[in-house]
Amino acid sequence: MTEAVKINRGLKGIYFERSGVSDIDGAAGTLQYRGYSIHDLATHATFEEVCHLLMRGELPTAAELDAFDTEMRSHRAVPDAVLEIIRTCKDGHPMDVLRTCVSALAALDPGSQQVGEEAFQRNGLKLTAQVPTLIAAHEAIRNGREPVTPDNSLSHAANWLWMLKGEKPSEDAARLADVDFVLHAEHGANASSFAARVTVGTEANLHGAIVTALSTLAGPAHGGAAEDVMKMVKEIGTPDKAADYVKAKRKNREAVTGFGHRVYRAEDPRARHMREGVRKLGEEMGAPEWYEILQAVVEAMKPYSRHGLNVNVDFYSGVIYQLHGIPMDLYVPIFAIGRMPGWVIQCLEQQRGNILIRPLTLYNGPEPRDWVPIEDR
Amino acid sequence: MTEAVKINRGLKGIYFERSGVSDIDGAAGTLQYRGYSIHDLATHATFEEVCHLLMRGELPTAAELDAFDTEMRSHRAVPDAVLEIIRTCKDGHPMDVLRTCVSALAALDPGSQQVGEEAFQRNGLKLTAQVPTLIAAHEAIRNGREPVTPDNSLSHAANWLWMLKGEKPSEDAARLADVDFVLHAEHGANASSFAARVTVGTEANLHGAIVTALSTLAGPAHGGAAEDVMKMVKEIGTPDKAADYVKAKRKNREAVTGFGHRVYRAEDPRARHMREGVRKLGEEMGAPEWYEILQAVVEAMKPYSRHGLNVNVDFYSGVIYQLHGIPMDLYVPIFAIGRMPGWVIQCLEQQRGNILIRPLTLYNGPEPRDWVPIEDR
Repeated sequence: MTEAVKINRGLKGIYFERSGVSDIDGAAGTLQYRGYSIHDLATHATFEEVCHLLMRGELPTAAELDAFDTEMRSHRAVPDAVLEIIRTCKDGHPMDVLRTCVSALAALDPGSQQVGEEAFQRNGLKLTAQVPTLIAAHEAIRNGREPVTPDNSLSHAANWLWMLKGEKPSEDAARLADVDFVLHAEHGANASSFAARVTVGTEANLHGAIVTALSTLAGPAHGGAAEDVMKMVKEIGTPDKAADYVKAKRKNREAVTGFGHRVYRAEDPRARHMREGVRKLGEEMGAPEWYEILQAVVEAMKPYSRHGLNVNVDFYSGVIYQLHGIPMDLYVPIFAIGRMPGWVIQCLEQQRGNILIRPLTLYNGPEPRDWVPIEDR
Repeated sequence: MTEAVKINRGLKGIYFERSGVSDIDGAAGTLQYRGYSIHDLATHATFEEVCHLLMRGELPTAAELDAFDTEMRSHRAVPDAVLEIIRTCKDGHPMDVLRTCVSALAALDPGSQQVGEEAFQRNGLKLTAQVPTLIAAHEAIRNGREPVTPDNSLSHAANWLWMLKGEKPSEDAARLADVDFVLHAEHGANASSFAARVTVGTEANLHGAIVTALSTLAGPAHGGAAEDVMKMVKEIGTPDKAADYVKAKRKNREAVTGFGHRVYRAEDPRARHMREGVRKLGEEMGAPEWYEILQAVVEAMKPYSRHGLNVNVDFYSGVIYQLHGIPMDLYVPIFAIGRMPGWVIQCLEQQRGNILIRPLTLYNGPEPRDWVPIEDR
């Protein structure tokens, strides 16, 4: 194969499938889930409604939502065997522990082995419900506490904060977590969703595909931005030092964390909702300086906006988690809580018209050569 | 995005990267690892030599092989914590249990979090050594036996059979397992290796990428062929029934298991080495009928060979495992033992010139629509 072939590095610009889930216009900076603007969803919808919209295709009626949410809440508890596994590897990174648990849930639940529409819908709802429980249980166990039992009277977001902290969250705090999940719920052929589709392409089951997604999200270039932004904010320290920080980074041709995105050239449309959340939460908690540092960084980055370097969604989310006192290594797992319905629907779409996803590499290694016995090497 | 764009379903024919590892010519039916013909390697090389060739780039000298193999053998034992996890989920599918263990090894070993050439080489050798131990330990535990301690005086293949059965294998049996591993060691951008590269593309670590590969190999369209062929052979029962079986399948437009491959149009060059193994082993063990059934199926499939429907590597391997008394649900894990060095080198290549792998989906969902409050739906 030595003729001229085109190498599509990173598969940039290559369409591999149709999808009816999210419509992203990177140049205009717009995002819709099934036709609904992300701004409307962030303003009006709950995460449960968005899960129904993504996984079932339409916003639910009140009766549909009630049935869907009741089923989802019923799946929150996890088997004791998984809590045992968490205890066994409690000192690991929360993403590794979460992934180990989801993988173990496959081994513990014979229903995980089924494929097809019905099985993917059922197991998708189950895993979406279980993921926050697993993360909160690990956080409790590694801090020497007993895991908090899920409270089925609470919404997905409020129950998450309840299990994480052992106290009922304020309405504002619960809504902010809810909006965070809505904003992270789905985003086209991002690396983790794409990897999950490759797994489904071999006719693997949903648990396996979610394990793949978790492995892929764990990479700092995908799920790690919120954590990196928080580190940057701490490094900058005060708003007046932001301009010098940005200048030094640009001079050294280093990236400024939280800016730029493979798809968006305009501002990531999800960013504004988190921005407003940071501002309000910082004021409420008497810590407005973090918001001010972030805005000073944005101001200093303005000259580079024409190169497509605008804030992305993770620019603000880390500071929100910090204000809630959440440890940095939980930022990526929180992303995973939000992304669950997106992974599930992409896997559902993939298995509906399934095909093995198998591109090619162009060989550039040694020419054919003869075997050489070890004594002659 | 409504203009005409090309959808590359399954990424068929799309090159996404260069690779210096394996050169596959699907039309000619040839395969080389770093320039060495698969036939030479299957005839002369040990799996350890092939691991060195793939991961380090060249066949080792005697001194290099000694150092490499000594290091690999030193990694065979696994922590007690992982054996605990196996006990917790012992009734799961062996692929799910293996994947859970590899994921847990990441949580248990802080060295797993490192990335880069040195870390990937070190962790790649470690995991290659540990995978057979994990599979054999699970097989022992689910049968109520204590796991067999690895014997570091034995080769990779012989030690695998030792741990699996608790008795030292004959030289022929060990060599046949060795050749099986050599033949499965690497195969370009197959779905599991490609998925692992997508994971590495986000700058994730090697353990995460191997977890992804295991999830992806588990799908029946990738790793499941050997098991399916064995089921087919049992269904056919006697050689004289093979022709009718094939005729009925072709009439119903159903695929005949073990024939056809995304890449090969000619015979899979790996098949012949397994064919010879089946014939000899079947004779030795006084069970030649399985080989005869397989050959009767090949004979009946000859008219379809011009459509590219030739035997693939997994056509013969299942019968070898069956003759060894290995349970069918271990066939895919055995594939994983062989494929480890291929996954590792592909991940190494990916991180050397890393780029986020993120293709696109073309939106075909609803047009933009206004938010509707729940009471109006």
